[in-house]
Amino acid sequence: MSKRIKNIVVIGGGIGSSVVLSGLKKYPFNLSSIITMFDNGGSSGKLRKELDVLPCGDIRQCLVALANKSNLTKFLHYRFGKGTLKGHNLGNLLIAGVGQMAGSLERAVDIIGKLLNTKGRIIPVTLNNAEIEVLLNNKKRIKGEENIINYGYLSKIGIKKLFLNPQIKANPKAVSAIKNADFIIIAPGKFYTSILPNFLVKGIKTAFRSSRAKKIFICNLMTQGGNTDNFGVQDFLIVLEKYLGGNPVDYVIFNTGKLSKPLFKKVKKFFPKGDFIKYDKNLLKNKKFIGADILDRRLQPLNPSDILVKKENRRTMVLHDPNKLAKIIVNLCKPR
Amino acid sequence: MSKRIKNIVVIGGGIGSSVVLSGLKKYPFNLSSIITMFDNGGSSGKLRKELDVLPCGDIRQCLVALANKSNLTKFLHYRFGKGTLKGHNLGNLLIAGVGQMAGSLERAVDIIGKLLNTKGRIIPVTLNNAEIEVLLNNKKRIKGEENIINYGYLSKIGIKKLFLNPQIKANPKAVSAIKNADFIIIAPGKFYTSILPNFLVKGIKTAFRSSRAKKIFICNLMTQGGNTDNFGVQDFLIVLEKYLGGNPVDYVIFNTGKLSKPLFKKVKKFFPKGDFIKYDKNLLKNKKFIGADILDRRLQPLNPSDILVKKENRRTMVLHDPNKLAKIIVNLCKPR
Repeated sequence: MSKRIKNIVVIGGGIGSSVVLSGLKKYPFNLSSIITMFDNGGSSGKLRKELDVLPCGDIRQCLVALANKSNLTKFLHYRFGKGTLKGHNLGNLLIAGVGQMAGSLERAVDIIGKLLNTKGRIIPVTLNNAEIEVLLNNKKRIKGEENIINYGYLSKIGIKKLFLNPQIKANPKAVSAIKNADFIIIAPGKFYTSILPNFLVKGIKTAFRSSRAKKIFICNLMTQGGNTDNFGVQDFLIVLEKYLGGNPVDYVIFNTGKLSKPLFKKVKKFFPKGDFIKYDKNLLKNKKFIGADILDRRLQPLNPSDILVKKENRRTMVLHDPNKLAKIIVNLCKPR
Repeated sequence: MSKRIKNIVVIGGGIGSSVVLSGLKKYPFNLSSIITMFDNGGSSGKLRKELDVLPCGDIRQCLVALANKSNLTKFLHYRFGKGTLKGHNLGNLLIAGVGQMAGSLERAVDIIGKLLNTKGRIIPVTLNNAEIEVLLNNKKRIKGEENIINYGYLSKIGIKKLFLNPQIKANPKAVSAIKNADFIIIAPGKFYTSILPNFLVKGIKTAFRSSRAKKIFICNLMTQGGNTDNFGVQDFLIVLEKYLGGNPVDYVIFNTGKLSKPLFKKVKKFFPKGDFIKYDKNLLKNKKFIGADILDRRLQPLNPSDILVKKENRRTMVLHDPNKLAKIIVNLCKPR
């Protein structure tokens, strides 16, 4: 068995990928994080509209997750609370500004990555601008990440098709990272708006399917009101593989842990439609499915500005435990 | 003679101080830069009004001047060109944001200073908020840095008194830096709005006068239309010492160099009221006055957003040569 350091590629959005990365960075892997580029709400969306830059928020999350301890790290998440800067994260402004000056988002990510001494590379899935669109079973179309999240009835009506408009090409670096990966991890995150869109970018699905990497899908912890209501572990996999084509996923990691009643009540207060993802007990006997208590029981504080947005669009309060997750992944990555 | 590393304190505003510091940082000195806190125009002024933070622009200039080479440095001066961020410097946003999160401008300066590995300390002259006011000979009052710069006729009417409103106290660190200084340099800069106001802060003048440091005044290169029209080297010193009380200045460094005609024409186009500061040839025989060609002949490009502001408020295109200036200062600092 080769002693070459293994290449791990994480595909996803901001928070979910950053949880996976912050656990994995403690192990000797070559990490690459391929990031969705279709966020059009909040600070990212505002910068996107006003400055014509690609969205920065998810990149910021992952930069901080991969950073070696730096004085600056914690300040990158700081969100201005008033004035014309209200709602902007300092890190987003930094990424956008450096990007404008350096000529591209990609260069900005490299420059800030070096500054933060990040362990791993961050790769925007595309360098082109596009919006996510959804065609519902009732023929209605919804355009844009924020609208899709906020619509509220997607799961009820049913999604016929998710696509990007315009159809755009993958960042060649994303394609080559996928091709050279030993393991590809599909991170948790907003399923229809942060996870699946990565595979709609021209070139990603093909690279993913032809890559010899082992493919690991980390299932979300909770349903997302309006988008994935009543989804069980297998439902996520079925929809994912519908967009991937065939059955390329080798492993599905899912959570079996629960919150205490008082903690769950707290979460329900802010996410009345959110529920823990159900799973069929038989999955626990299937080698493809790895069920474990991977819950981080320290609830994420809700950002004051998050309380103001629609319930559907809030950042989740319940995250995976980065270390528990990393241990399972490391175990799967061992030669067998 | 003691081999202790000498403490040099530079007092001034943004660009002038940063020129002095960028030359001096190549020598083995303990550098401190005391910075004016009364800027109320442009990006600094906007942040000051909207976020209730002290002005950041001059601090940014000096942080960059004192930085050891860092990937980030050149991006701190980047100015957003459109949207609600228009006119803001990235560095100002960084200082303001870190300041809001860390609880004070002082902490922000320390944190960003460490990140940039600055050679020397940056000390806001005060941690309180005040505006500069001018009482003219015609009894008219003008309030605020920007208005004073833009007024256009100050020198014609004559300034009776310059003061701060409210009267505020010095940052104790500024007082102690002045007390422990071996050499204090009064930097070039906008005379009435960036240089003199430092000495109006309660505690600075007294500390300055009682400090045993040698005091060096670096005279501006050009007159500032509306504020210092027709000023000669001695006029600057007379007004400065009026605000300092007595004759505490040991040395005055002034420029004797000129620009070529085509270069001067270029400058005149943007600064029609600006002229090189005149000096009495007899000064060259006086040991207190050090005249030399200290001109940097690489003209500063005008920032596009500067072209939009009033002529009076533009950043100067003609700066001191940091290395020539440093050599003269180093020479004055030698034991004699």
